[in-house]
Amino acid sequence: MSNPSILILPGDGIGPEVMAEVRKIIDWFGAKRGLQFDVSEDLVGGAAYDVHGVPLADATMDKAQEVDAVLLGAVGGPAYDNLDFSVKPERGLLRLRKEMDLFANLRPAQCFDALADFSSLKTDVVAGLDIMIVRELTAGVYFGEPRGIFEEGNERVGINTQRYTESEIERGARAAFELAMRRNKKLCSMEKANVMESGILWRDVVTEVAKDYPEVELSHMYADNGAMQLVRAPKQFDVIYTDNLFGDILSDCAAMLTGSLGMLPSASLGAPMANGRPKAMYEPVHGSAPDISGQGKANPSACILSFAMALRYSFDQGVEADRLEAAVEQVLADGVRTADLMQADGGTPVSTAEMGDAVIAAL
Amino acid sequence: MSNPSILILPGDGIGPEVMAEVRKIIDWFGAKRGLQFDVSEDLVGGAAYDVHGVPLADATMDKAQEVDAVLLGAVGGPAYDNLDFSVKPERGLLRLRKEMDLFANLRPAQCFDALADFSSLKTDVVAGLDIMIVRELTAGVYFGEPRGIFEEGNERVGINTQRYTESEIERGARAAFELAMRRNKKLCSMEKANVMESGILWRDVVTEVAKDYPEVELSHMYADNGAMQLVRAPKQFDVIYTDNLFGDILSDCAAMLTGSLGMLPSASLGAPMANGRPKAMYEPVHGSAPDISGQGKANPSACILSFAMALRYSFDQGVEADRLEAAVEQVLADGVRTADLMQADGGTPVSTAEMGDAVIAAL
Ligand SMILES: CC(C)[C@H](C(=O)O)[C@@H](O)C(=O)O
Ligand SMILES: CC(C)[C@H](C(=O)O)[C@@H](O)C(=O)O
Repeated sequence: MSNPSILILPGDGIGPEVMAEVRKIIDWFGAKRGLQFDVSEDLVGGAAYDVHGVPLADATMDKAQEVDAVLLGAVGGPAYDNLDFSVKPERGLLRLRKEMDLFANLRPAQCFDALADFSSLKTDVVAGLDIMIVRELTAGVYFGEPRGIFEEGNERVGINTQRYTESEIERGARAAFELAMRRNKKLCSMEKANVMESGILWRDVVTEVAKDYPEVELSHMYADNGAMQLVRAPKQFDVIYTDNLFGDILSDCAAMLTGSLGMLPSASLGAPMANGRPKAMYEPVHGSAPDISGQGKANPSACILSFAMALRYSFDQGVEADRLEAAVEQVLADGVRTADLMQADGGTPVSTAEMGDAVIAAL
Repeated sequence: MSNPSILILPGDGIGPEVMAEVRKIIDWFGAKRGLQFDVSEDLVGGAAYDVHGVPLADATMDKAQEVDAVLLGAVGGPAYDNLDFSVKPERGLLRLRKEMDLFANLRPAQCFDALADFSSLKTDVVAGLDIMIVRELTAGVYFGEPRGIFEEGNERVGINTQRYTESEIERGARAAFELAMRRNKKLCSMEKANVMESGILWRDVVTEVAKDYPEVELSHMYADNGAMQLVRAPKQFDVIYTDNLFGDILSDCAAMLTGSLGMLPSASLGAPMANGRPKAMYEPVHGSAPDISGQGKANPSACILSFAMALRYSFDQGVEADRLEAAVEQVLADGVRTADLMQADGGTPVSTAEMGDAVIAAL
């Protein structure tokens, strides 16, 4: 039997730097734990645009469809800010999400014990925080038609369409309920059903799906109140299910609460492939951080923990995923810190490579 | 010359309770400062539905169009949760915003010195915080067509339309730049121009308007990053300008940062009327709080401070507005607290009426 396959798309900015550390981790699992992967690498985002004139070449898209998991670094940067909308680095990422049909974006917002003080929130508000946000990732205003900038009378009008079918809402909801079953059996669904009909349908469908999960305690919250409650008392949440646009904002808000932005991974999952594995892409929550790229300062932890999610969700290696996560936590507990994890007076930070090495040493 | 006119719409839940205190304040300004107002009162939200079967009667709408300022309490509550979308309490509020064409919603997020400890954020992160969020309030996904729940094949699809014309973006931007000129001359515009064409147009128009305000330092931020930055370091902002939906979420997030939700007012301003005053509605940022309504526990400060905004923006009484705001701060500094402003062990809270009386005593 052939090895499971991974396509690495380092992308732009700090993407290649943090991904280099993940490769070391992948190699370690091959050498020490007998987990061999067939790893290939390709371009996405600005890096792809520079070579191909598009942020994701068709050949890369085809490869992404064939592998067992895609690992993506980050896309975008100031060099690409003035590109036309259709070839912006972000379009490469959105194409992957859409064509791989990765409808369930899992974004854990977890506060690492060793970093609780680092949050802008009071330590007792965030210590031990462990939320899972499930963001619908293939529909809504990100992809709805009509869209564009049109002439109307003597001025322009910008139009986007929020659009959700029942089945789009339902499949993400099932993924969220399944996760809730394996966690603390609480799910909060967020929309604006008081203002948007798409939110009414959202609430209807989630309520219907809940009947198949009687053990899960379901609540509904308007997204604006959701943002407030995340800031006020984030530990009230277990799993949150929300749409593509609200999920974009609320998951970033939740990520920042933890004070551990450089630590947070994500998984984007689709339907099972012929081999039973879900279509899957894993990426850190942080972006390409052009301000620090090329300086060996980036924190590779979020990308490393994204690979841990790959071990868990794509490769059925929950024990090895736990091992890798424990190693990262160990490194933090030992006081090893990249620059983003330090207060101004915090001493000397380690480099990206040193952080990766420390994780391997702790494995 | 006739007195300036105010229409009071107390609405639902704690709305009538907090508005009763505002009436006392209005009377005080009449008796002690010679500021006489013609005050009338009417129904909105569930209270209007109970009597008229609609959340805002046409006659009330007409009155709102004629007065110099509307003061609104809050709308909604569990008794109305299952009403049809078209007659929900919120529709009354949205009708007022739309038909009065109140395009600039000013939401100050201010941290009161005496309450800084009450935030879930670290005191040094929020102490002295003073942001002004300007939310476009008459367009975007709140009002765009087509909208609704439709049949498609054998399932339903929920659709809403994000729609912004150049002039809609521009008039709100001018209001935001004007405010920035009177504050710290910094404006941050937030959208998702990396994903939505309406965001591209938004950024274009704001950049164009900025040419008329060369003294104002303009920056652009994606709304998801905006949510992060609000949590990480809110004091980096002065004025924020954003659209109806992003503004709904980001202003609630910013409000909660301050720890002073029960303290925050808002103003919704439109074009000048024949008498030169802008069309205007003032309301607290908090909602109808059904859990505490009818118990005399609600904090009237946000509603009182909304009247202070009315003094400033509708009645050109900046000095009197300062006086009222100072009185509220004095009361806080004196340790007078409604229940929402206390930690669990904070002593005995005052009632809604006692809080109102304390403000009057401090005036
Ligand atoms: C880069 C951008 C297109 C993307 C999004 O808006 O989804 C990012 O913010 C994210 O959350 O993954
Ligand atoms: C009550 C609701 C319709 C309203 C909104 O969504 O605008 C509220 O959340 C607000 O921010 O004023």
